[in-house]
Amino acid sequence: MKPAVRIAITGAAGNIGYAAAFRISAGGMLGTDQPIILQLVEIEPALQALKGVEMELLDCAFPLLENVITTSDIETGFKDTDYALLVGSKPRTKGMERSDLLGDNGKIFGPQGRAINNHASRNVKVLVIGNPANTNALIAMNNAPDLSPSQFSSMMRLDHNRALNQLSLKTGSKIADITRLTVWGNHSLTQYPDISHCRIDGQDATSVVDISWYKETFIPNVQNRGAEIISARGASSAASAASAAIDHMRNWIFGTPEDDWTSMGIPSAGDYGITEGLMYSFPVRCKNGSYEVVHDLHMDDFSTEKTKITEKELLEERDAVKALL
Amino acid sequence: MKPAVRIAITGAAGNIGYAAAFRISAGGMLGTDQPIILQLVEIEPALQALKGVEMELLDCAFPLLENVITTSDIETGFKDTDYALLVGSKPRTKGMERSDLLGDNGKIFGPQGRAINNHASRNVKVLVIGNPANTNALIAMNNAPDLSPSQFSSMMRLDHNRALNQLSLKTGSKIADITRLTVWGNHSLTQYPDISHCRIDGQDATSVVDISWYKETFIPNVQNRGAEIISARGASSAASAASAAIDHMRNWIFGTPEDDWTSMGIPSAGDYGITEGLMYSFPVRCKNGSYEVVHDLHMDDFSTEKTKITEKELLEERDAVKALL
Repeated sequence: MKPAVRIAITGAAGNIGYAAAFRISAGGMLGTDQPIILQLVEIEPALQALKGVEMELLDCAFPLLENVITTSDIETGFKDTDYALLVGSKPRTKGMERSDLLGDNGKIFGPQGRAINNHASRNVKVLVIGNPANTNALIAMNNAPDLSPSQFSSMMRLDHNRALNQLSLKTGSKIADITRLTVWGNHSLTQYPDISHCRIDGQDATSVVDISWYKETFIPNVQNRGAEIISARGASSAASAASAAIDHMRNWIFGTPEDDWTSMGIPSAGDYGITEGLMYSFPVRCKNGSYEVVHDLHMDDFSTEKTKITEKELLEERDAVKALL
Repeated sequence: MKPAVRIAITGAAGNIGYAAAFRISAGGMLGTDQPIILQLVEIEPALQALKGVEMELLDCAFPLLENVITTSDIETGFKDTDYALLVGSKPRTKGMERSDLLGDNGKIFGPQGRAINNHASRNVKVLVIGNPANTNALIAMNNAPDLSPSQFSSMMRLDHNRALNQLSLKTGSKIADITRLTVWGNHSLTQYPDISHCRIDGQDATSVVDISWYKETFIPNVQNRGAEIISARGASSAASAASAAIDHMRNWIFGTPEDDWTSMGIPSAGDYGITEGLMYSFPVRCKNGSYEVVHDLHMDDFSTEKTKITEKELLEERDAVKALL
């Protein structure tokens, strides 16, 4: 049996953390031959509920789950961790001022970045799920100077998967037959789900679906899917967000399929004209635990404009938190 | 790719159904090479929430999930289904009269048994999870005269897994090194978690743990674990119950490991002196999609007494619903 690896999850008593913890413990993220230790982090008032999550995890008698640590102390939570899923956050709510967003999330992701910097495994891979995910990841990354920026990412996979689903429903094609989709930019309403280079059953997606459906229905549907889920469920996406986090980590660790890529929020190196250092979603291929941006995709005027709109929003978010960077 | 199999889940918008649906769709029950069609059943008032569950399932872009059907019509829900997980029920609550228990669950499991009888695959495997699980399974089974009683089972695996966890915590042994545990009887406070034949790290469990701990701490802890979870979480076991359901089905379909067995609620054939036809949990070995009771285990006076206590409760439950059988 391999030695156990450590997986930290913050906000672990919340609905996304709860859904993720059980799938991960069953081997859904790292495979059924990889023992794990879960390091579950919550704020003080949620520790009682977190104890309940721990009890249920143990009650599953998962053969792979060697230990569960529950704590409100982030240094303990991130100690030696190989993977960190940062779920807990204060998302921006209606009427909230930018300065509040700054203050609330700075208090969470600045210290978490420093704790990861000082206590996690030197090879830690960090995925930020809690919203505003891109800018929270930017804060964490900038507070971890001893680690490589390439160890920090933010989640766009839920948007990517939602876009795959919309294309599958529209065309009747299987998910596995839809490749080379990209969701660019921010995990927000400005995101740009791009089918310019997408293949459906071996054909160009742009020749399979109507371009007005693409622009007027598909793009807004993907952008607004989160609100649609809330309206149907009376609760925000939980198990689908957890599933996307697992997909993101699996691809990052084990690679993307040949002839395909995925969408990940990563620190921009200036590709496609996007401001360097911004946590922005690009098309990436993964191999041997690393990602690489897919280069040289042709960007038409529509795509360029869309990628700029979402960049502008991320620049504004970055400016709002610049004291924390 | 194999042809898709159909999995019906009732009460699919509830917390157990929600936790089960995503793990099953990721391949957690039937493996990552088996496409599936989910047939999600809910009562009318929960159909809106169920729509949200369907949307989230589709948003996961699971390559194995070929289709999701949502319905409040049980004939549609069980049509051609290969597996049925019956989660939705009216459990007995404090102060509830037996006649209410009878009426409420009869209204659910009588018709469901008939719908399964008339519409499901002829090889359907049914697992009842909704409480009182054993007697609900008894009702369903007795309303499906065209199917073999051996196609109906009730879930004891959560109790079994909880018992494994208690032994692991006590002895420091790994879950995988604890075998031949049995939980007998009813999924209720009278259940009998039995370590008489259990092996821990190759030794007799009864020589590893103190017999007074076994009788005074272990047995009541396992029996009362459900209430302990509710008190910690403020909600009843959900993901651990879903996980146990998946374990139960996996073992039933793919077999139990060599030199081990599991606990399943099954129609008694009179083994160990338990009244024939009662839905009672026995130690079983599974192979090629069938189970077989483990015979010839020595039962000491303590074990015999405990198995009789839980049988007595099940006889009373059966008498209370006899009009439905």
